Amino acid sequence: MRVFQPMGEHNYEKVVFCNDSDSGLRAIIAIHDTTLGPALGGIRMLPYATEEEALYDVLRLARGMTYKAAVSGVDLGGGKSVIIGDSRSGKNPALLRAMGRCIDTMAGEYIAGQDIGTNSHDMAVIRGATRHVACVNESAGGAGDPSRTTAYGVSCGIRAVLKTTNGSDSIGGRHIAIQGLGNVGFALARFCHEAGARLTVSEIYEPLAAKAARELDAEVVGADDIYDVECDVFSPNSIGGVINDETLPRLRCRAVVGGANNILAEPRHGDELTRRGITYAPDYLVNSGGLIRCQEEVFGRPTEDFTIYSKVTQIYDRTLQVIQRAEELGIGTAAAADWMAEERIAAAG
Amino acid sequence: MRVFQPMGEHNYEKVVFCNDSDSGLRAIIAIHDTTLGPALGGIRMLPYATEEEALYDVLRLARGMTYKAAVSGVDLGGGKSVIIGDSRSGKNPALLRAMGRCIDTMAGEYIAGQDIGTNSHDMAVIRGATRHVACVNESAGGAGDPSRTTAYGVSCGIRAVLKTTNGSDSIGGRHIAIQGLGNVGFALARFCHEAGARLTVSEIYEPLAAKAARELDAEVVGADDIYDVECDVFSPNSIGGVINDETLPRLRCRAVVGGANNILAEPRHGDELTRRGITYAPDYLVNSGGLIRCQEEVFGRPTEDFTIYSKVTQIYDRTLQVIQRAEELGIGTAAAADWMAEERIAAAG
Repeated sequence: MRVFQPMGEHNYEKVVFCNDSDSGLRAIIAIHDTTLGPALGGIRMLPYATEEEALYDVLRLARGMTYKAAVSGVDLGGGKSVIIGDSRSGKNPALLRAMGRCIDTMAGEYIAGQDIGTNSHDMAVIRGATRHVACVNESAGGAGDPSRTTAYGVSCGIRAVLKTTNGSDSIGGRHIAIQGLGNVGFALARFCHEAGARLTVSEIYEPLAAKAARELDAEVVGADDIYDVECDVFSPNSIGGVINDETLPRLRCRAVVGGANNILAEPRHGDELTRRGITYAPDYLVNSGGLIRCQEEVFGRPTEDFTIYSKVTQIYDRTLQVIQRAEELGIGTAAAADWMAEERIAAAG
Repeated sequence: MRVFQPMGEHNYEKVVFCNDSDSGLRAIIAIHDTTLGPALGGIRMLPYATEEEALYDVLRLARGMTYKAAVSGVDLGGGKSVIIGDSRSGKNPALLRAMGRCIDTMAGEYIAGQDIGTNSHDMAVIRGATRHVACVNESAGGAGDPSRTTAYGVSCGIRAVLKTTNGSDSIGGRHIAIQGLGNVGFALARFCHEAGARLTVSEIYEPLAAKAARELDAEVVGADDIYDVECDVFSPNSIGGVINDETLPRLRCRAVVGGANNILAEPRHGDELTRRGITYAPDYLVNSGGLIRCQEEVFGRPTEDFTIYSKVTQIYDRTLQVIQRAEELGIGTAAAADWMAEERIAAAG
């Protein structure tokens, strides 16, 4: 494993390894870029098999946060952290407080939030050790779980893309294929259902799939069959890398718009979507609703729904701008979003 | 390279990788233990061949600082940092300021000082970016270069050891063999000369050796011949690891007392000195004078010589205590010093 080498490739500012023998905490905090502000990013807790795997993940995710904030007009930098461990068996208050103490000695340069393996109640525990944490649960005075706000943002991205592909931004009557019914995916499915969409869904955890069938009239397909669904929008909302060499030839959707991070296995897969006439709404743009919500908490502004949803609604306009810019430059939408994010950082730096 | 694995072996709290593409800074800051206070440790700048080599060095040195502070009654923890680069060609204000900014985002948990490749003027530059720095040069209001204070502390260790081996703590008339005439070594040689000692010295840089011959009546021997000198005290003051399997059988001294860090190649070499009837004064105890000086600056106390030298003189009593404890426990002096340091940390933790 090398640390400086990957840091140098994409100008990461800092990588912190935290070890607390009393609680068993082993965590890595990565700060990619703080040009626009302190680095906000969630704490992901997963039983990574190796240090290297954990480092790779946290670096990739921290950089994604830089671009997400930059393209979304958020005045924050990009960072992320990972705790090596199983969130079901290995998470406890002592470990979370040790993580909080580690964050607290970063002088506010990193602000934690929730991610896979952590939740808004964990953030409240962490707040006992540091004030540099967002997404604290609402009963403890925080902005709460950002999943529903993220889902709303994805729906704004879907509407913008439908406007381009179908001429109308109405979700009603459209066929949306949703992969993954976690917090974001299920909230998105409910939103689309209520807006009159036809739904096809895939979800490994069967009770959730059954619930979607029962409550949202969703057709449930197998985990691997979701790629073959003929639909208006394919919306990946679980793991990353689902647009890859294997899945691309199978896609029969007109657009890809999802809440998952790192939907494209590699940047070239974005260009390949364009070549196939499939409109891609960049993931970090359309899934920035949660970040926009947490931003209000970070800056001590009231986290009332009206203000937050007004801001998240701008994802609609931003998605249209990215599509337009991509057409002007003759590049893919993913590359256009990167360009716009880098432009904003360069102007501020 | 693995990071958590070596951290876990000796309970390191934190390792920070800093990268600044504008100035070319690549630095690692290691925090070993902050039980007794914030971690103070010098910034070493060397052209390490690999990241791994730099990590190994900074971890080893940070842990040494924990023990040094603990055994010396200093209320500070142990840390250290390394900058990968050549201090002659690669050091400039932009790089030092970037290092200062990185230190500044550690919330005071790490306090920098000078070490190999950096000096008190560099610390003044770093202070432009962070207040968490000590050993700033005296004309800029700091405690200044701690080398002479360190040398004085080593002389206190030599006197204590002579008290044990020769019955009198007088340096006058004793034969001291000094390896290395850098800032600490030369100051120590001058002190011993003025106290009436007979000196044998080795130094790779010839003008310094010539100066010692001219000004201090020192006999100069080759770099490898210093180990064979029959003398009262052999005093290593340059590189570490000089007491090893190869040099041990050659030693004809009655004691080893030096300002260098990590004089013993491995802990077992300390036991071997004991078996051979050679008294060893633990390196991190007798070379703690510089740390004691910097401590006064860290805590905002006046750095006047009288106060500082009074405190450094306690190295004499501490060395005698360590020798006594080693005899009581039937262990080597190095192990006894470790024991006393760990005892103090455990009592405070």
